[in-house]
Amino acid sequence: MAAEDRITTVRWTGDAATGCLRLIDQTRLPTEFVEVECRDVPTVWEAIRSLRVRGAPAIGIAAAYGAVLGARSGGVAGVDDIRRSLRDATQSLRTSRPTAINLFWALDRMDALAASTATGPEIDATALLDRLLAEARRIDDEDRAMCRAIGRHGAELVGPGQGILTHCNAGGLATADYGTALAVVFAAHEQGNPVRVFADETRPLLQGARLTAWELKRRGIPVTLICDSMAAQVMREGKVQMVVVGADRIAANGDTANKIGTYGVALLARAHGIPFYVAAPSSTFDLSIPDGSDIPIELRDPREVTHGFGRQTAPDGVDVYNPAFDVTPAGLIAGIITEKGVIRPVDTPTIRAVLDSP
Amino acid sequence: MAAEDRITTVRWTGDAATGCLRLIDQTRLPTEFVEVECRDVPTVWEAIRSLRVRGAPAIGIAAAYGAVLGARSGGVAGVDDIRRSLRDATQSLRTSRPTAINLFWALDRMDALAASTATGPEIDATALLDRLLAEARRIDDEDRAMCRAIGRHGAELVGPGQGILTHCNAGGLATADYGTALAVVFAAHEQGNPVRVFADETRPLLQGARLTAWELKRRGIPVTLICDSMAAQVMREGKVQMVVVGADRIAANGDTANKIGTYGVALLARAHGIPFYVAAPSSTFDLSIPDGSDIPIELRDPREVTHGFGRQTAPDGVDVYNPAFDVTPAGLIAGIITEKGVIRPVDTPTIRAVLDSP
Repeated sequence: MAAEDRITTVRWTGDAATGCLRLIDQTRLPTEFVEVECRDVPTVWEAIRSLRVRGAPAIGIAAAYGAVLGARSGGVAGVDDIRRSLRDATQSLRTSRPTAINLFWALDRMDALAASTATGPEIDATALLDRLLAEARRIDDEDRAMCRAIGRHGAELVGPGQGILTHCNAGGLATADYGTALAVVFAAHEQGNPVRVFADETRPLLQGARLTAWELKRRGIPVTLICDSMAAQVMREGKVQMVVVGADRIAANGDTANKIGTYGVALLARAHGIPFYVAAPSSTFDLSIPDGSDIPIELRDPREVTHGFGRQTAPDGVDVYNPAFDVTPAGLIAGIITEKGVIRPVDTPTIRAVLDSP
Repeated sequence: MAAEDRITTVRWTGDAATGCLRLIDQTRLPTEFVEVECRDVPTVWEAIRSLRVRGAPAIGIAAAYGAVLGARSGGVAGVDDIRRSLRDATQSLRTSRPTAINLFWALDRMDALAASTATGPEIDATALLDRLLAEARRIDDEDRAMCRAIGRHGAELVGPGQGILTHCNAGGLATADYGTALAVVFAAHEQGNPVRVFADETRPLLQGARLTAWELKRRGIPVTLICDSMAAQVMREGKVQMVVVGADRIAANGDTANKIGTYGVALLARAHGIPFYVAAPSSTFDLSIPDGSDIPIELRDPREVTHGFGRQTAPDGVDVYNPAFDVTPAGLIAGIITEKGVIRPVDTPTIRAVLDSP
């Protein structure tokens, strides 16, 4: 994939004092390609909450740029004003969604940058704002490098012409470059491996149908769209030799939170003897929690299930259970593909060893 | 459930010569309750193909009444005219959908009735038409008794206050009375057992969301709607102690074709140690085929997946795989609940023994 073909999911235009954040509005894909311009924290918060921007790495990058917008919101008269506004901004953005750890990781970095920057004559307000934007850009750039490294490591796991099943969207739209799970596909394709992807549509919000199928088709990679309920049948028919998905948070033991339905796909892969991989950067690991039971799971609006696409499809007032994520136990995961290499077997010592490597 | 509360999915009104078939248009539920009036075979054929009437037993009943409409379509001048018109009608109706065996079983009965009725002075055309309508009504009445018997046998398998997961709709809308899988729920509820149902929405056509949730809510039975991709999570959380689904065709060894996604649910139930039951009448068994590999699986229009909710939700021209059914191997089925009793274990000798019982 040439650099100019990249999907710029999240981008900052202009300088720190007057520029703005632009996001592809992913709720309107695949039929409309529209950017949202964000000039304040509430607009960024709403974009994250309503999934205009989604995917753990992309949420982190958007939040980092959102913190820059927040930092200048009270004016740039003094360093203390910027620090106070930044703190308010990062506190607000932390409440936008609960599960993806990259959000908190990116905001922690922005807070730490401000805290570590000396005050007094050494720095003025404009310079602090510039440094905040530089830190957000670093998070963005690192994510880009991460995608390429994950693609490189992951492509080695893909056999010639294999069928690869994925769930939700962990592609270019979810990251700064070409994805985590889909980076594996893109890298294999670039190497001339004629892979085919089976994309679960991923109810309720259809990220697989709307985003993954769109990205792959745009790049000329063979993709077959299926309903989530067809994954078992496709596996049984021998069409799939590998499953790879992204992640929203990975506990110290490798238990992985990802889009609802991922745990079921992992069980189905196990039943058919198909290896199930997670692809995620080190920023998605939360080593502060020992296992998946401590990962908070977001419950979302029942109307996503009952009124998903402009039409009511369930009776008035029916009870709905709509968790946005589930946790796949480490024992079902063949390997976690990170920018530092493949964690295999998936256990606490191997995770530590790979993440601590240079 | 009182008889007057029954959902009359399929009903004949009037006499054989001038009456007609009325069907609840299930594609318009739950927001609109509308009946379709059928006065000729093409209208019945279209109603079956487009799922205005669906559910294996209901398709069989609708086809039987459709055969009566066909039999009189060339006029009722002579017995031979009726026989010829009937043959054309049943041949046509056999092409409406391929998987549910009840369709063929009901049409075989109509053909056999005509073949076994003596010709000559003993019978005139009007009398033959009356006998055909009587046979269709018998199929309808037998189905009603079948639902009650399945409910009775199935309710004995349900523990107090259990959570029951079901997929698609095997309720009143799929049968002449109150269903097969849902008969188990209705009968348990009637006995005062405070069961709760988890209804898979059942993509692509959302029979679980539109029909099962509607039927249960209408009857005051607690129901929680979930996306298909949430079944594994609900099982993991201990909310479900039993799975029960309907069937479209059951092979001699117990392999069971049912709505796409059923096989996956059976695997997930196995992984969580939850018993998985099929509820179906003896008319759903096809003892002419040894196992599920011989069951024809209908492939349906990709637009059901890409344009299902009144809005395009996938990129133009994307490849789609849309099988309407899958086959659950007998080994994953704890028991098959029939009107004659529960087949357990599910194997060829036990199936023969239960179906051959009086």
